Amino acid sequence: MSNKFVVGADVGGTAVKWIAGTDPATPEFSGEIPTCPNDIEATFQSLADAVRSKTDCTVNQFGLACAGVIDPVTSLLCGSPNLPGWQGKDLHLFAETIFPEAAVTIINDVNAALVGEWIFGAGRGHNNLAMLALGTGVGGALIIDGQLVTGSYNSAGEFGHMIIERGGLECACGNKGCLEAYTGSRGIVQRSNTELSVADLFKKAEAGDQEAIDLFRETGEYLAIGVGNLINIIDPDLVIIGGGVARAGDLIMKPCIQDVSKYVLASIKPEEVVVPAKLGINAAAIGVAVMARGNA
Amino acid sequence: MSNKFVVGADVGGTAVKWIAGTDPATPEFSGEIPTCPNDIEATFQSLADAVRSKTDCTVNQFGLACAGVIDPVTSLLCGSPNLPGWQGKDLHLFAETIFPEAAVTIINDVNAALVGEWIFGAGRGHNNLAMLALGTGVGGALIIDGQLVTGSYNSAGEFGHMIIERGGLECACGNKGCLEAYTGSRGIVQRSNTELSVADLFKKAEAGDQEAIDLFRETGEYLAIGVGNLINIIDPDLVIIGGGVARAGDLIMKPCIQDVSKYVLASIKPEEVVVPAKLGINAAAIGVAVMARGNA
Repeated sequence: MSNKFVVGADVGGTAVKWIAGTDPATPEFSGEIPTCPNDIEATFQSLADAVRSKTDCTVNQFGLACAGVIDPVTSLLCGSPNLPGWQGKDLHLFAETIFPEAAVTIINDVNAALVGEWIFGAGRGHNNLAMLALGTGVGGALIIDGQLVTGSYNSAGEFGHMIIERGGLECACGNKGCLEAYTGSRGIVQRSNTELSVADLFKKAEAGDQEAIDLFRETGEYLAIGVGNLINIIDPDLVIIGGGVARAGDLIMKPCIQDVSKYVLASIKPEEVVVPAKLGINAAAIGVAVMARGNA
Repeated sequence: MSNKFVVGADVGGTAVKWIAGTDPATPEFSGEIPTCPNDIEATFQSLADAVRSKTDCTVNQFGLACAGVIDPVTSLLCGSPNLPGWQGKDLHLFAETIFPEAAVTIINDVNAALVGEWIFGAGRGHNNLAMLALGTGVGGALIIDGQLVTGSYNSAGEFGHMIIERGGLECACGNKGCLEAYTGSRGIVQRSNTELSVADLFKKAEAGDQEAIDLFRETGEYLAIGVGNLINIIDPDLVIIGGGVARAGDLIMKPCIQDVSKYVLASIKPEEVVVPAKLGINAAAIGVAVMARGNA
């Protein structure tokens, strides 16, 4: 089995989650290291050290998922606001450096998470899927007819920058009224008029705090506009909701599903179409490992 | 050539445009008859009479494009607000009745128009296309990887009901802030605070009337939000703008293209991506005839 050892890593703005093993679905090893947003070399070295501290297997395939827009031809990271020091870097080069014997696969993190959900998670058995990843920002990914849709200019899946309220709240991208400005953790905290994190706001809501409950309900209602737009545009089998913010679960999902029904054809049942992600924080690492393995 | 005679018809709320001939690209015959929105049988009979008044060729293929949502299995027209009397009718049955020897192909009108533009018009040579048809309402269609995307629940391409301004103008669908409420002719007239038709408003703008010019400029700015959302979601090669309202040309297209650049990645050139339709009023009749012929 030594020629079938795969590593999958998912680089976000704060942490790199990784898995390693012979089968991406049941990885023998996994872990998490902090990302250095301004030092790509140091981050890759830490990742290599972390994997090597657990196994000395030769890595045959290395799948690297990364936040941001990745040029599929040059593998340059062209846009990733949360990894400022990585801007313009050749991801393939760094990936090859740490695992020189591995075949390298590189892909955007939300695309990777959707592939993970498609093969092993909420999307299993379906070939038309959209995914919204609610994190600090809001990412998206799209599978149509069993194929990832990356777009003609590498910009498909930027669901967070769909405008849902002309002239609305300011988004980190500079525009106003983007879905991300309402449903990303940055936007939720801003709307809360507190200094609390989303995790803390979630704890308050769980403890019965009405203001916090209302905040997540409104988040679900804004999300419903984005989900409704996706259904009216692409009409996938499922819209999978993932990312850290989605851990608020029914606090967001229930009002979202309720409101989606207002925006779409009566024949569509939002409670069947809009579903939570299943794989949790390792979805992207698993997904990109599957792609690296050539199973996807 | 008698076994290669094809008729393409495009049923809208006010008129049926039709073409007939051996080659859909250069039809020998074409015409237009009024639609009876409450009498499907009378409309089909008029269509048959109109075609028969010009040719007595046996019709081998009959392509029927129709406004509204058509169930692909039963060919029932399930949703078409501008054809109230056609609701729930089996389009295939009526199509077979008037041309009994023809193989029948039935498809939504905007899908048909996009196929027309794809094969013979603005979309030639591209395999990832979105189309917005600005008429009384606003329809849409999508080709990804050379395939029409009709959606899992037959609802893809409902671009007009994408919400661009939460709590905005009322739409005919009952929701608020739909793209259609701003960029369909009904919405444009409403925003003009006049009793004039879009055609009259267009004449005023062409004659230099500043209020009318501003009205179309704003229409272009609203359209840009919808186009920007489409690019951020699907990122097609081209977004083709057609339909009667699009005849306002640069009055709408210029401000639209200018604003799209605010909403999409800097690497995307809106002046190359956002293009006017080329085939004019017969796009859908030509497109569905091509599909009927099996060329698409």
